[in-house]
Formats: sequence, C-alpha cells, structure tokens
Amino acid sequence: MSVVPSLDETNKSQASIQPLIDLVKSDMGRVNDLILEKAGSDVEMIPEVAKHLIDSGGKRLRPMLTLAAANMCGYGADEIGHVKLAMAVEFMHTATLLHDDVVDESDMRRGKLAARMLWGNQASVLVGDFLLGQAFRVMVDVGSLRALDVLSTAACVIAEGEVLQLSVAQNMATTTEDYMKVIESKTAALFAAACEVGPILAGSGEDKIIAMRAYGMELGNAFQLIDDALDYGGSAAALGKNVGDDFREGKITLPVIKAYERGDAEEQAFWKRVMEERKDVTDGALDFAMGLMKKSNALEDTLEQARNHGAAAIKALDAFEDGPIKSALIDAVEFCISRAH
Amino acid sequence: MSVVPSLDETNKSQASIQPLIDLVKSDMGRVNDLILEKAGSDVEMIPEVAKHLIDSGGKRLRPMLTLAAANMCGYGADEIGHVKLAMAVEFMHTATLLHDDVVDESDMRRGKLAARMLWGNQASVLVGDFLLGQAFRVMVDVGSLRALDVLSTAACVIAEGEVLQLSVAQNMATTTEDYMKVIESKTAALFAAACEVGPILAGSGEDKIIAMRAYGMELGNAFQLIDDALDYGGSAAALGKNVGDDFREGKITLPVIKAYERGDAEEQAFWKRVMEERKDVTDGALDFAMGLMKKSNALEDTLEQARNHGAAAIKALDAFEDGPIKSALIDAVEFCISRAH
Repeated sequence: MSVVPSLDETNKSQASIQPLIDLVKSDMGRVNDLILEKAGSDVEMIPEVAKHLIDSGGKRLRPMLTLAAANMCGYGADEIGHVKLAMAVEFMHTATLLHDDVVDESDMRRGKLAARMLWGNQASVLVGDFLLGQAFRVMVDVGSLRALDVLSTAACVIAEGEVLQLSVAQNMATTTEDYMKVIESKTAALFAAACEVGPILAGSGEDKIIAMRAYGMELGNAFQLIDDALDYGGSAAALGKNVGDDFREGKITLPVIKAYERGDAEEQAFWKRVMEERKDVTDGALDFAMGLMKKSNALEDTLEQARNHGAAAIKALDAFEDGPIKSALIDAVEFCISRAH
Repeated sequence: MSVVPSLDETNKSQASIQPLIDLVKSDMGRVNDLILEKAGSDVEMIPEVAKHLIDSGGKRLRPMLTLAAANMCGYGADEIGHVKLAMAVEFMHTATLLHDDVVDESDMRRGKLAARMLWGNQASVLVGDFLLGQAFRVMVDVGSLRALDVLSTAACVIAEGEVLQLSVAQNMATTTEDYMKVIESKTAALFAAACEVGPILAGSGEDKIIAMRAYGMELGNAFQLIDDALDYGGSAAALGKNVGDDFREGKITLPVIKAYERGDAEEQAFWKRVMEERKDVTDGALDFAMGLMKKSNALEDTLEQARNHGAAAIKALDAFEDGPIKSALIDAVEFCISRAH
C-alpha cells in the first residue's frame, strides 16, 4: 500500500480489461462450457434460474483471475484443473449473488430483474445452495486439498462478511475499520482465493502463492471501494443497478462514513435520520447526501483508498517476472479503478 | 425391500434409540464440543443464531450414524476423522433447516420459534451459508477426497430435492414417484452420506461401503415417510411442529397422494381446492382431510411403505457381522418407525 499512483497516471494508462480477456479466451470458453454443464439438472427450475444469472453478462472477472494466475505460474494449457476451479469460483460468486438478492430484497441485478423477482426468494435460496454444492463437487474432483481449503475457507469468510454487514447495517456508529472488514470478507476474500488457487495448482513456491493471494485481496478491496463510490455517482448502465441503491437500503459504505465523520451536528442528524431511522429516504435526500459527500471530499477520498489498494495489488506482482499475463493483471487493476472516471 | 416385518413384530421390538446413543456417547461428546467450537465467530450474530438451533434438542441422529458406521467398520476410537465428519454432517443438516424455514416461511422449528422469526430471513440464509462453509472446511481438514465427494454430492442432491419439492408443491398431479424422488433427495441422501463416510474413513471394502449407504438411504426414506404420516396424526410435542403444517403449506406428501388417488370426484375436488387453490384451508378442512385419509387407508399405507424401507435398511446390515453396533443400528430403524405408534 506504499506506492500510490497519481490520479493522472491512472487515467493515462488507457486501462483495459481486454488484454486479460484475450489471454484467457480459450480457457474461458472451456469454463463457460463447464458452467452450462454443471448448472444442468433434471429439476427444470435449477438451470432456468442459474442461466438467468449466468447469461446476464457478468464480466466473469474472478474465473479469469484463476485462469491467468494458473497460466502465469506455468500450469499447463492442456490441463483442466484451472478450468474446473475457475468454474467453481464463478459458481460460488453466483450463489452469493442469489442469496444476496434475497437478503437485500433487491429488485434488480446486473440491469435485469433479480431472480427472486421471477422465481421467488425460495428458488433463489435453493438454487444458490445447489450451485454452491456443485462448486464443491467440482473442486473435489480437481483433488487439490490445499485449493479446497482455500476455497472452503473463502466460503465461510464471505458468509461471515455478509452477516457482519447485516449487523452494522443502518448503524452510523460503523467505523472505517468495520467497513474494511466487511468488504475484505464479502468481496476481497473470493478475489484472493480465486487468485491463490492458481499458483497452488501450478505447484509454485510459497512466495508466489502469498503474492498472488495479496494481489487478489488488494484488487478485491479496490473493486468494492470503487463499487461503493459509484453507487453515489455512476450511471445505472455502468453499475447494472441504480445509483443510490445502497443509500435506499441503509448500507453504510465508506463514502457515508467519511461524510458523516466530517459533518457538523446538523449533517450528522441528517445521516442518522436517513440511514438509521430510514425516514425521508427520498430522491431529494439522495441528492442532498451526494452534496454532502462532495463537500466533505468523501467520494474523492474513497477513490483514493481504492487507488491505494490498487497500487498494493500491482506491487504484489513484483514476485513474478514480467510478461504478457503480468502486464494484463496490472491493466485489470487499472481498469477496475478507472471505472470510477 | 423384500422382507416386510408385520406391524406386530415392529411393535413388539421395544424399539429404542438408547443403545445407539449409549454406544457413541463418548464420541458424541467430542462432536458436540466441535460443533460449539466451529459455530464460533467474531461476528456475534453467527453463534447466536447457530446456537439457537444447536441447543434446540435435535436428536443428532445423522452424526450418530456416522460415528456408529465408522466404529462398526473398525475405525479407531482414538482417531478424530469420524468426529469431524459427524460434525460436518450435522452442520449440513442445520444449514438445510435454516434455509428450509425461510423457504417454507415456517414460524416454528423443533417446538421453538424458527431462527428467522427471531433474527430475520436474512440471518437465516447467511448463517446457513456460514455453517455449510464450515462443514466443508472441516471435511477438507479430514483429507479424504472420497468422503468429500460423497458429502458434496449430497449437498447438491439435497438442494435439488428441495427445488423439486418447490416445483411439485401445491400440485395434485404429483405422483408417488415424484414424491419418492423428493424425499430420497431432500432427506435420505444425507442419511446415506452420513452412513457411507464411516466405512470410507475406515478403509472398508466396496461391499461394506455400498451396504452402509443402502442402510442410510432406506432409513432416511422410512424416517421421512413416518414424518409425513405424523403430520396428519402425531402430537405437536412428538413432532416439534404442529399437526397439519404440511397441509397448511400445501405440501403434497404420500398420505395426500394416496387419499387423492383413491378419492371420488367430490373428494378429489376437495384436495384440489385446498392444496392447489389454497382455499378454505381451515382446521375443519384438516379434520376432513384426515377423515379421507383414514377412509382410504392412506395413512396406514404410508406407514406400510415406511416399514418396507425400514426392513430394507435392516437387510442391508447383513453385510456386517453381528455385534452391539449392528444391533443398535437395527434398533434405530425400529425406533424411527415406532414413532408413528
């Protein structure tokens, strides 16, 4: 977290996810085939619900990271373990989304109606459970106990993070530390695990395993910070959800924490009223909240935090020799951060 | 399924679960300690919700089966693998209960308020996810890929069964075959897996692994058939839920299928009205439904089916030499069936 690229440098980089997409393209084709196969079931509702999410155009960043990490560490292109683990990672993520929508009572997901709006909360919970089960089956099939340990630990940590988020929701006493613990658990842990299993499969040394995990963790933190900033300033199209969703749910994210900390008594009373008491949560209140964030530099500071984590992610890649994959992984960080511009 | 003990024989057996409880008592103490340890988390809500269910006095039949199966196959009492897998099996079951309550919108579980009534659907979904994650971590820790395969497959099959149950709910076109597929998936699959991992851990031969799995599967089927019969004739105390819960939820169980099949046009119209249209689902309708079940022998035939599966479970134990554990496992079958008397 020591090297912080300036905003200019980040913007100048022409950040793109394309090099990563191109490099893992052939493996991703195999992942996508396996996703469709493993979402299958004689129970019709399962592939219906699963495909609704699978087809909804997520970027599949997490499985791409698994593939890239494995490839960079020399895991053979003719092997299949990385393809299976990448699929498992995506299923873990999809299961989380299905359960999240139920927990958050969300209407939309990636710009489409959430599965729970079409098939009900019941199907969302149970199909999520099915996908999680399939993820574990496929991991077991790969046969690496260490990768299984990493991914099953991530499953626990994600759930823990979601419960923690629930505990601190609608509570303005949430600290930056609480918030960072939530996003590290609910988001960054899966990025970290997705990356870590690459060198594990490849049989790399501990230094590379630790470095790849650090890259994923820092990238995941940056990713979620940007996401939380975008909720107060992105377009619905870029987000796949509506600006202000977090605000309307009373989700305490870093921009809110910072604006609150820096607010005067009257402003703090506003935050408590809308986030804790859930009173007057109108579009006007959202505009007012965004004004307070601008005034207090809360959004800009959130982005600065994201850039710090992004820089740390890039720094972690020092453990690897230069090459096209390393370079694509650096671009991926910059792409995640540039979403905010 | 060839040997069917007569009703008299079953009753005469003084069926009791006590021999099984006594034989695995010391190992169960270790399982219970591990359950408490692994339900722990810094996120306070997790142990709160988990302990609400853990302390609610389930019989812990499934982990007892794992311990007994391992012991019977000679797995050492000084080992810990069977204790860990037994714990994992109980956590898988507990996670299913938490999610089931959300799916069924149940108010009660084991005679207490369901967790979702106290902490909300959100916590029930997420703490269930956490427990499932912990179950996998502990399984991975045991290190048997074959046991992992059996249990992760069971996790998928359970979720599949639950979704299937959802698909056939409130649909009088449900066949006996559909129903058996649901209970085999949602209930018997975990009994089967709980039993199967015992001989796997012990390194037993395929014949014993297959036999132990068959025992669990048949016992699970018998267990669920009895449960579904009790819903139309047990006391709330014996059930830990209320008589008629399935009726009020429109759950199509075997007693309903049989009464419907054997009903005249007027009776079939009644079943369609209450189970499909969910109209006039009153206590009076429940009484009337129970009358139709009595008249059509639907309950008695459901119990007969349960006895058939119980007999098949006992028959599967032929693969093992006589001894106190085998004898306790036979008693456990008869205990499950005698709950209905």
